[in-house]
Amino acid sequence: MPMASRSVAIFGLGAMGSGMAGALLKAGLKTHGFDINQAAVEAFQAKGGASGDIADVADTLDAVVIVVVNAAQTEAVLFGEDGIADKLIKGTVIVACATMAPESARDLAQRCNAMGLLYLDAPVSGGTLRAGDGTLSILASGSAAAFERAGPALEAMSSNVFALGDAVGAGSSMKAINQMLVGVHIAAMGEAISFGVSQGVAPKQFLDVIQQCAGTSWALESRAPHVVSGDYTPLSAVDIWLKDLGIVQDIAKSAQFDAPLTEAALKQFTEASAVGLGREDDAAIAKHYARRAGLTLPGDG
Amino acid sequence: MPMASRSVAIFGLGAMGSGMAGALLKAGLKTHGFDINQAAVEAFQAKGGASGDIADVADTLDAVVIVVVNAAQTEAVLFGEDGIADKLIKGTVIVACATMAPESARDLAQRCNAMGLLYLDAPVSGGTLRAGDGTLSILASGSAAAFERAGPALEAMSSNVFALGDAVGAGSSMKAINQMLVGVHIAAMGEAISFGVSQGVAPKQFLDVIQQCAGTSWALESRAPHVVSGDYTPLSAVDIWLKDLGIVQDIAKSAQFDAPLTEAALKQFTEASAVGLGREDDAAIAKHYARRAGLTLPGDG
Repeated sequence: MPMASRSVAIFGLGAMGSGMAGALLKAGLKTHGFDINQAAVEAFQAKGGASGDIADVADTLDAVVIVVVNAAQTEAVLFGEDGIADKLIKGTVIVACATMAPESARDLAQRCNAMGLLYLDAPVSGGTLRAGDGTLSILASGSAAAFERAGPALEAMSSNVFALGDAVGAGSSMKAINQMLVGVHIAAMGEAISFGVSQGVAPKQFLDVIQQCAGTSWALESRAPHVVSGDYTPLSAVDIWLKDLGIVQDIAKSAQFDAPLTEAALKQFTEASAVGLGREDDAAIAKHYARRAGLTLPGDG
Repeated sequence: MPMASRSVAIFGLGAMGSGMAGALLKAGLKTHGFDINQAAVEAFQAKGGASGDIADVADTLDAVVIVVVNAAQTEAVLFGEDGIADKLIKGTVIVACATMAPESARDLAQRCNAMGLLYLDAPVSGGTLRAGDGTLSILASGSAAAFERAGPALEAMSSNVFALGDAVGAGSSMKAINQMLVGVHIAAMGEAISFGVSQGVAPKQFLDVIQQCAGTSWALESRAPHVVSGDYTPLSAVDIWLKDLGIVQDIAKSAQFDAPLTEAALKQFTEASAVGLGREDDAAIAKHYARRAGLTLPGDG
């Protein structure tokens, strides 16, 4: 394999994927981008990305990064109609970034390994802004060979790779744990900031004081400013939490683990989506709380 | 009033009060301590504190700091049998530190004001260690005169005074908001760290990774280490949350504000207390989650 021609492919050029693709390009890696949305592909090409038929470049690829919504879409990219797995050459590493159950990750890894492909269980954390900056955290597990082969791509996309061992599934487990906490904390921010309004505490005063007190969280410091400014342009949408907390709940149920706070948070996001807030920034969970109590937040009535 | 003889009294020498009394002494303030527990009074005297009859020193007091469990105990100190309010001289400031409903704070303030006493609504945040160091946060509201008169005591006890305006009740509101978040975050930590164990993630790995990820919170970074070490020596006990989240829930109900995450967290603490964990550190909420799922945490089985 002539090293000079090595390159990377990325499947999924959505909010996260387009940022990560940009980070791969910025790092100087030859990058091929794929998406069913032609506009996303054209935007990627405008940034200097390559596209075309995966079969034509398969023998030049070190890594295939898959940034889709869930396990089912990851499976479709690999093994569906027009799936790519049988077009890749042995030793290529699949870098699977979607949030999924650890069991799904193990299943996909086995099927890839059976075809001679390496597999890195590599969900990401950090949001769209950090995706574009190449400063994501990656919660990764897999063989030493998979880590090594994926190295240049990981380095381009992230500022922090947590190497969680050689067992595929460990990365997905840690991602699920993290999402459980972030989802509950965002809902708790919405509950508390709206409760504050019911007590005469304006969102700005809430943020100024609480971020210096024991009640603070990363999620609160990230999302409460959106409530203060009344700007719900989606950096991460309410509907993401229906998906991610749903996955967490499924994993918990499989383990017969009772997760009542996760359940309560998921219920709030589900209700918020049902009243039309699904595509707004997830901080809009605060609007759902406030409206239900007949309260008004900045920029909402 | 000869300024040279000015001094401070503190009522309640429990876990928080004894630390705060020590901070007042360390700052060089003449401090009189009172508690129904004679052993607590003796420990305070051993640190150089004064005691005796409040009536004998009432005319020397700038401030009376009340650090008891709730509104009812604060009321008893002020207006109960042997209540002190009618022994104090006009212009003395009551610094009321217990967590209570804003409505209770307003009621107590009115009754104090009617007797010529100043009132500072001044709940504290930071825990017993910071109480002893004199580095609490104080969430305070009240008149400029009340703030001024309480100044030396506030300075001795805290590193951060949030001045939340002249309306008594604002301090208690902010404390309730903070406790809502801390309580939910501690329960979420317990849920997530035990969920992690169900997925093969040891508490230490959970802490190492999550505290660097979006799932982190002040409460998680404060309490998860207790789970990792299996040391549940109470810095703040499970039963504190039955009290504080109960107060939060009462305030929310009065405002017809629906707080489902608070309710879910309170239910977990209530269950943990019922199975005998009430006097342990509040991080023991994780034990309740783990035991219910048949899992084992460090130092627990």
